[in-house]
Amino acid sequence: MSKNLTTRAEDYSKWYNELVVKADLAENSGVRGCMVIKPYGYAIWEKMQAELDRMFKETGHQNAYFPLFVPKSMFEAEEKNAEGFAKECAIVTHYRLKNDEDRPGKLMVDPNAKLEEELIVRPTSEAIIWSTYRGWVQSYRDLPLLINQWANVVRWEMRTRLFLRTAEFLWQEGHTAHATKAEAIEESEKMMNVYADFVENFMAIPVIKGLKTETERFAGAEETYCIEALMQDGKALQAGTSHFLGQNFAKAFDVKFANAEGKQEYVWGTSWGVSTRLMGALVMTHSDDQGLVLPPNLAPIQVVIVPIYKSDEQLDTISNEVDVLVKSLRKLNISVKFDNRTTQKPGFKFAEWELKGVPVRIAVGPKDLENGTYEVARRDTLVKEVVSKDGIETYISNLLEQIQKDLFEKALNYRNTHITEVNSFDEFKAVLETEGGFVSAHWDGTAATEEKIKELTKATIRCIPLDRVEQAGSCVFTGDPSVGRVLFAKAY
Amino acid sequence: MSKNLTTRAEDYSKWYNELVVKADLAENSGVRGCMVIKPYGYAIWEKMQAELDRMFKETGHQNAYFPLFVPKSMFEAEEKNAEGFAKECAIVTHYRLKNDEDRPGKLMVDPNAKLEEELIVRPTSEAIIWSTYRGWVQSYRDLPLLINQWANVVRWEMRTRLFLRTAEFLWQEGHTAHATKAEAIEESEKMMNVYADFVENFMAIPVIKGLKTETERFAGAEETYCIEALMQDGKALQAGTSHFLGQNFAKAFDVKFANAEGKQEYVWGTSWGVSTRLMGALVMTHSDDQGLVLPPNLAPIQVVIVPIYKSDEQLDTISNEVDVLVKSLRKLNISVKFDNRTTQKPGFKFAEWELKGVPVRIAVGPKDLENGTYEVARRDTLVKEVVSKDGIETYISNLLEQIQKDLFEKALNYRNTHITEVNSFDEFKAVLETEGGFVSAHWDGTAATEEKIKELTKATIRCIPLDRVEQAGSCVFTGDPSVGRVLFAKAY
Repeated sequence: MSKNLTTRAEDYSKWYNELVVKADLAENSGVRGCMVIKPYGYAIWEKMQAELDRMFKETGHQNAYFPLFVPKSMFEAEEKNAEGFAKECAIVTHYRLKNDEDRPGKLMVDPNAKLEEELIVRPTSEAIIWSTYRGWVQSYRDLPLLINQWANVVRWEMRTRLFLRTAEFLWQEGHTAHATKAEAIEESEKMMNVYADFVENFMAIPVIKGLKTETERFAGAEETYCIEALMQDGKALQAGTSHFLGQNFAKAFDVKFANAEGKQEYVWGTSWGVSTRLMGALVMTHSDDQGLVLPPNLAPIQVVIVPIYKSDEQLDTISNEVDVLVKSLRKLNISVKFDNRTTQKPGFKFAEWELKGVPVRIAVGPKDLENGTYEVARRDTLVKEVVSKDGIETYISNLLEQIQKDLFEKALNYRNTHITEVNSFDEFKAVLETEGGFVSAHWDGTAATEEKIKELTKATIRCIPLDRVEQAGSCVFTGDPSVGRVLFAKAY
Repeated sequence: MSKNLTTRAEDYSKWYNELVVKADLAENSGVRGCMVIKPYGYAIWEKMQAELDRMFKETGHQNAYFPLFVPKSMFEAEEKNAEGFAKECAIVTHYRLKNDEDRPGKLMVDPNAKLEEELIVRPTSEAIIWSTYRGWVQSYRDLPLLINQWANVVRWEMRTRLFLRTAEFLWQEGHTAHATKAEAIEESEKMMNVYADFVENFMAIPVIKGLKTETERFAGAEETYCIEALMQDGKALQAGTSHFLGQNFAKAFDVKFANAEGKQEYVWGTSWGVSTRLMGALVMTHSDDQGLVLPPNLAPIQVVIVPIYKSDEQLDTISNEVDVLVKSLRKLNISVKFDNRTTQKPGFKFAEWELKGVPVRIAVGPKDLENGTYEVARRDTLVKEVVSKDGIETYISNLLEQIQKDLFEKALNYRNTHITEVNSFDEFKAVLETEGGFVSAHWDGTAATEEKIKELTKATIRCIPLDRVEQAGSCVFTGDPSVGRVLFAKAY
């Protein structure tokens, strides 16, 4: 297995693109900007889905499904939201093809099959969902509505990259409706916390919780909570957002309820989502020049066993032993693959499973049989150890837990050493041009300054951290008063 | 809870439409022909998905995800397939909206954002998937490809009905590629059998396995295997199809492999799918004039417990006892709901859970506390029984299994008594006009006769049963020779 992987130091962006394809996660399709998620990549996404779905249900949410299309008049009802997405919409205008008489065997759009009203392929589902909620809410007894949808959405991005930015992507979108403002805010914060919990403890990616500035806020939201991660190249990545929508969509779609006193009020809303973009974050946080590094919680194969043998008899003896090991590991809910292909040599197999990020590799050869040992290799550190057969199951089980923790600690350490406080714009630029990462700086709170800084440095305000200290200071760019530091970074 | 459900005898079609909405399964959306699947309906679909997904994986398949859009030139590559779906396609022609200067606050399609090539919203994914497989298959070692996708698809149907026929629907579509014809045929048959197993044993719906005639075959297939169910109104419903595609898509998309001798050959294909249509079959097979009847294997709530009380003290005492019961049922993996709402009376609750098809209802009143009993009611038969507390868990567990079996037996009995052999066209018409069901008749094997019969009676050939006896006869319509009976029916 020839990897030929560009190294991160050579070209980080190229390394990422190659790795996603070579590790069989995804590839570009014949449709502009749309990707094919390959079985190995999809198996990781399924594990993410299963855990998130469990967490959503545990917090009282139910799944439902709403239409893919949004009629234009419905789409434009919430003006800010419509404006935010209008420039990147796929629009269905016709509903039939017919034979093209000039080109035998070819088809053309039938001009007689034009829709009366154009349909927008959902870029997000607030419009269609709030237009539905109108029929579901009459009284305070109907609230809260706590609903999630697993779906595909389309945003016609001009520059796309596998997982990070694709025209079509998969995501979940929660849409909730509440009787009070306080409850809706509590929900937005709760779901931000669910996301942070998932991304940190399941994906081993540390995140900073914060609020978006008005400029970076979701179109149609009153407040956007976010979790921001840091990639190995010093660029930030927004890993999830949770929006407090105020009564904006309730007003746009006339969703009212009778409160306990019988008075009509507008409903308060939230929405929140994470997407296949997280797959990009996963790759860019942990992987190395040998290939993927997967946290055990997300690895479709957690342990691969490779036999080392010179004769069929040796393979038979090894196989008998391995069968027992496989069974006992599976009993511990560890997913194991015995790679007994006779068409490939051990070195090829080692490289392949390294590329695919299998957390633990066990090699078994004739010597191991003699000595009652296995050779156990960690993917994350590439460290090998010879381990006794006795108690190997517990050893492996503990090792997987340890790897999960170590990956998080390593990423956390990287992240923490890449938050730099700066007090001048020169410093600000210098940090961005060298190590990158988050730049913690005072900001005067205006969109104009934010925009200028972005023009000059390509850095945006990733978030106003929820745990920031309120502290008087001077804006790093204008010198105007600031009430506390915010985090800037270049971002995916 | 006022049900006001039209009865099946009054108007079967109206009964179905009302039931789907009133039982909170689905509703029509603000988008023509598209439905909203509500949380209760979606919870049933999730159970179906989970079981099918398990069965697909057990038979060696992996999930993946392919783009929503198919460029027109790719779509038209397999001519028969394209022709079959061209008349009902949603077509994306533009990628941007802009402000409509004549109507402030409104949007219009930006004429400057016309796509160079139109995109078809997938009605099925053979084209996009086979265009991808071209890159995945070089040698016989790359085969078979055994891939499934859970996705939404769009077919611009003019007359739509919730679940049964909607412009957008959810489904899974398996797409496999094989080195030999025999292996591909084996796969098509295997997946038909997986579907039959699922629909019969999980949904309690008996099916007949068969082959479609050329007229009814999937566009682009060499052979379509199907499973056909019978609804309570005597109309058939196609519950799943599995297609042997021959080399049609491999040729259209140039998917070749080097065989063991190094010779280039075209790959052999299959595709197979079931959809949210099965939700319609579920409703129409088992439900009655009181509402839904759900097989325990699919019921989101298998047991509901309703307290009967006159004072808060009584409710407290009952609640304490019920808490213990709930826990012990959950230990047996039974999903239980304790309906302790104080805002509704028991009669209202009984009617609501009947409408929603919960298989078993337990009522607990003060007398039960005294006597050490529960009142247990079956949703399917509406029979109530007073049951001792001792061993109630085992009783309920067995009862759920019994209900699952009884529902299947009842449906099987109905189906079996609604297959009528006829030997003249008068008999044929008489059966269709009275009890309906499957009409088993000789047919001369021509599309022309099939078409004539359809024109005259609206009945189509549902399938050529796989287990039919080869037997000489005369076509019920033309009198021409026939080699065996086929099953006709009016169908959904």
